[in-house]
Amino acid sequence: MSTKFHSIALVGKYQSPDVAESVMAIARFLRERGLMVWIEQGTASSIGGAGDFPVASYEHIGGEADLAVVIGGDGTMLHTARRLVEYGVPLAGVNLGRLGFLTDIALNDARARLDEIVDGRFREETRFMLDAEVLRGGVRMFQTRALNDIVVNKGDLGRMIEFDLSIDGEYVYTQRSDGMIVSTPTGSTAYALSSNGPILHPSVGGIALVPLCPHALTARPITLPDSCRIDIELLPPQDARVHFDGQARFDLRAGDCVRMTRSQHALRLLHPESYSYFAMLREKLHWSATPRHN
Amino acid sequence: MSTKFHSIALVGKYQSPDVAESVMAIARFLRERGLMVWIEQGTASSIGGAGDFPVASYEHIGGEADLAVVIGGDGTMLHTARRLVEYGVPLAGVNLGRLGFLTDIALNDARARLDEIVDGRFREETRFMLDAEVLRGGVRMFQTRALNDIVVNKGDLGRMIEFDLSIDGEYVYTQRSDGMIVSTPTGSTAYALSSNGPILHPSVGGIALVPLCPHALTARPITLPDSCRIDIELLPPQDARVHFDGQARFDLRAGDCVRMTRSQHALRLLHPESYSYFAMLREKLHWSATPRHN
Amino acid sequence: MSTKFHSIALVGKYQSPDVAESVMAIARFLRERGLMVWIEQGTASSIGGAGDFPVASYEHIGGEADLAVVIGGDGTMLHTARRLVEYGVPLAGVNLGRLGFLTDIALNDARARLDEIVDGRFREETRFMLDAEVLRGGVRMFQTRALNDIVVNKGDLGRMIEFDLSIDGEYVYTQRSDGMIVSTPTGSTAYALSSNGPILHPSVGGIALVPLCPHALTARPITLPDSCRIDIELLPPQDARVHFDGQARFDLRAGDCVRMTRSQHALRLLHPESYSYFAMLREKLHWSATPRHN
Amino acid sequence: MSTKFHSIALVGKYQSPDVAESVMAIARFLRERGLMVWIEQGTASSIGGAGDFPVASYEHIGGEADLAVVIGGDGTMLHTARRLVEYGVPLAGVNLGRLGFLTDIALNDARARLDEIVDGRFREETRFMLDAEVLRGGVRMFQTRALNDIVVNKGDLGRMIEFDLSIDGEYVYTQRSDGMIVSTPTGSTAYALSSNGPILHPSVGGIALVPLCPHALTARPITLPDSCRIDIELLPPQDARVHFDGQARFDLRAGDCVRMTRSQHALRLLHPESYSYFAMLREKLHWSATPRHN
Repeated sequence: MSTKFHSIALVGKYQSPDVAESVMAIARFLRERGLMVWIEQGTASSIGGAGDFPVASYEHIGGEADLAVVIGGDGTMLHTARRLVEYGVPLAGVNLGRLGFLTDIALNDARARLDEIVDGRFREETRFMLDAEVLRGGVRMFQTRALNDIVVNKGDLGRMIEFDLSIDGEYVYTQRSDGMIVSTPTGSTAYALSSNGPILHPSVGGIALVPLCPHALTARPITLPDSCRIDIELLPPQDARVHFDGQARFDLRAGDCVRMTRSQHALRLLHPESYSYFAMLREKLHWSATPRHN
Repeated sequence: MSTKFHSIALVGKYQSPDVAESVMAIARFLRERGLMVWIEQGTASSIGGAGDFPVASYEHIGGEADLAVVIGGDGTMLHTARRLVEYGVPLAGVNLGRLGFLTDIALNDARARLDEIVDGRFREETRFMLDAEVLRGGVRMFQTRALNDIVVNKGDLGRMIEFDLSIDGEYVYTQRSDGMIVSTPTGSTAYALSSNGPILHPSVGGIALVPLCPHALTARPITLPDSCRIDIELLPPQDARVHFDGQARFDLRAGDCVRMTRSQHALRLLHPESYSYFAMLREKLHWSATPRHN
Repeated sequence: MSTKFHSIALVGKYQSPDVAESVMAIARFLRERGLMVWIEQGTASSIGGAGDFPVASYEHIGGEADLAVVIGGDGTMLHTARRLVEYGVPLAGVNLGRLGFLTDIALNDARARLDEIVDGRFREETRFMLDAEVLRGGVRMFQTRALNDIVVNKGDLGRMIEFDLSIDGEYVYTQRSDGMIVSTPTGSTAYALSSNGPILHPSVGGIALVPLCPHALTARPITLPDSCRIDIELLPPQDARVHFDGQARFDLRAGDCVRMTRSQHALRLLHPESYSYFAMLREKLHWSATPRHN
Repeated sequence: MSTKFHSIALVGKYQSPDVAESVMAIARFLRERGLMVWIEQGTASSIGGAGDFPVASYEHIGGEADLAVVIGGDGTMLHTARRLVEYGVPLAGVNLGRLGFLTDIALNDARARLDEIVDGRFREETRFMLDAEVLRGGVRMFQTRALNDIVVNKGDLGRMIEFDLSIDGEYVYTQRSDGMIVSTPTGSTAYALSSNGPILHPSVGGIALVPLCPHALTARPITLPDSCRIDIELLPPQDARVHFDGQARFDLRAGDCVRMTRSQHALRLLHPESYSYFAMLREKLHWSATPRHN
């Protein structure tokens, strides 16, 4: 038996002890197939140990694993992608509940689908990410990466914020709103969709800017080429925050600039051969194959 | 003085005798600059002759002119682009009224701006177009090209239509709606915007599908990569039409398939050096540089 | 046994021979309960006769029946309401397929629910209608009534139309768009909803104006008090039509004025006791009792 | 000369010393007209005293004044309405900047317009308000009133919240979203409009529920009759807040119920005779009398 993969790391949803059984079952199954299996360190802590499987840090996984299997939901995939993308290790996602946009292998189907993948029968997709930094007086205060979206949002007081938007250094407009979602194609079916953002197929090289409750009725979502640099600069008085994939956040002050560009690193996402983006949309968005008649 | 352009064709808005004066004034001005100037044949008929300027067909212009200057509104630009795009001749647009998205030189500014352009000081932009054909029982019944959009729409009876959407041969969904707008980035600020479509920057390689009054509330605009083939197949009973840039149309029957792909030909659009896409959006969509306070 | 109802008319979907069996079964069932039963004349023609049941015109039904049971879908209910509303006879709707917003008794449940209703156990709801007339040079050219909506729409050419809107004789705005939906609360869950109109609870005394693909991005749906007079006056050049409940239509010329007011007649709609407006919305709009988690 | 009004109170924008001059000028002008003039207490503190004018509390104004003139923006009007509505004293609003939806007298026009009003030439409009209370385990924890809107919103963490909506005690749905705006007709042109809510004419007896970034794409704004009781009950885990006219707020816990009903008190709003609601909408929303052509 020849497979493309020799060593596989498992990452489970954190703070969810009930994921333990699924992680260990998949670990045993993959070892029986002759693969080297690691349990990610934080996962092991979260599920009360890794049994007789070796534990590995994200750095170790990034350097040594041929594949990481994420067991949880889309949130776990976002977290793992943010940690592992710079190493180029591909990810595949097993969902414990309803299928997610990113975690598209059902738990009860996991053996068959992972069998296919380790046999080399899979579809590989590339999903670009955004690099973000917060600049204050020209100094970088914070830096991170996002797979779904970066959201500049009003803060505790719940008052509208005001900011300047610039693209590639050119001033575009000043906006008063609850905030702005800057979304990748991957994020376009997540929070951005709730705010009337456009769905972007993963192959479109575009970044969507989606205003949150803008004061001006003419503020519409706009999709920019993914080669551009997006700057959002807060105007005083301010009470604002920036959120990254809903997982990291940073409190902003007036004058702060959130700068976003396409990351040089892209997520490699593995799907079972039967995967179809449109079938997934149909299922998740309840698009009917046969529409309602009345 | 050396310029890039030696021969220029002028195309004026049809059925608008009031365009005559502007066309002739620009013709004289360009001849004084030492350029060879043709008046497009239909334009000449429409404005009651071309004076002592030679008249030329689109074919002749396509083969011989270095530049075509369109005098009218965005509709005239759409018309001219559809006729000339296959020849690769660049277009520049002079607007007789309010500036358009495509015709961005004001009439009272036309001499200075055209001076710049013929001196080689301009910004060249590429706008892709869509090729469309209507297939009936596998036979091509109609074929054309669009710069803005292709709209499959309900017909005379005003009843919702029903159709299957396929992308690259893969079935996506069946939709009941008033119709579907298939829009280029250029068309994304035209009709598609009125139907809540997303604005696509001209550099984004995407095609927007924007449903018109869809029956299902989950039908949302989606942007696809411009490399894909889009098929819309009408289901019975039918009373539907397809419109191309609002300028050509074809009556559809049940079973007809409207097939759309990115054209191999792209419009070369010349702007004055001061042109900015975002400044134009700001102006046309009334985005404020300084937002309203209250 | 004392019931509120002594005589009942049945109206079936036209041009649908398959409705015959259901109409006749309900007719027999109601006769067995001791009620006088008529079959509406057009229904009888459509289903090939009324067996040994008497046939009655809408006028006769309006004058003599205590209740009309509509067997079909919401379209049949719209049609029947438009014909019978002026007589004040209450309607109840049996749906042959998926439940409608107006026809909320399932066929397989029809005996039990109609039993309840004729026993006097029902919920009565009042739904107001709109009177509409088309004025040309001050002369009334057309006149009708609508339960759902009146739609002024672009015509055959598919070009945007332009019109002035006045409320109670006061000019409000000039709009360029594909048209305008003027909707009752009843119609707010029909076509208006597809065009981003607001849902109006049937007890709200409001009329919704919902623009269709308006050229100006600031044109938003507005709900007016149902006491007002709404005038839409077409501007030249025109190619427009007005549709009433999707069942009647009239071709408009430039200068024509479509005048709409609340009708003095209101539909009396009977529901089974278990009926709930919100439960119906939940079912029809797929609102979840327990939302999707991921 | 006999006027309807004998005593007038002036309320100025708080924490805005620059309002002082306008308040004092209007006070002098009204005194010259022979009217009794009070300066509201908080206003006097804010502008550094009331000169030789008597100072009055809201309670005193409520009991004694025939009219209160609000000098500031719509925020000042909201604040004053919340304080004075229960006394039935009518309000008129002078705006220091751009006209507001509620403060529709321009400062440079204030003498002429106030002259008219005190002479009895004005339009009186009634705007209903919402009473709100927060219930925890059946105990009322907080109670207030709102003229524009009550917004249940996500809290500091910026995560979606989940809540049950009930109308008149009937469960409607469970929603996951950023929150919900409950808006009066007056508030329908404020924050609710930014979230795609419907405009409600002030004469419509309706309350609009407008979801903020709902997770389900089928969650649409709905307008309810103003006679209903609206309960929003937070589900765990929670990080939520409720805001009243953007001026008061209360931190919510899981299980808390925000209960809203139409207030028995309604704002009496006085406008100059030339006031027109539609003219105001046209101006504020940039609806053109003559639409853009191109």
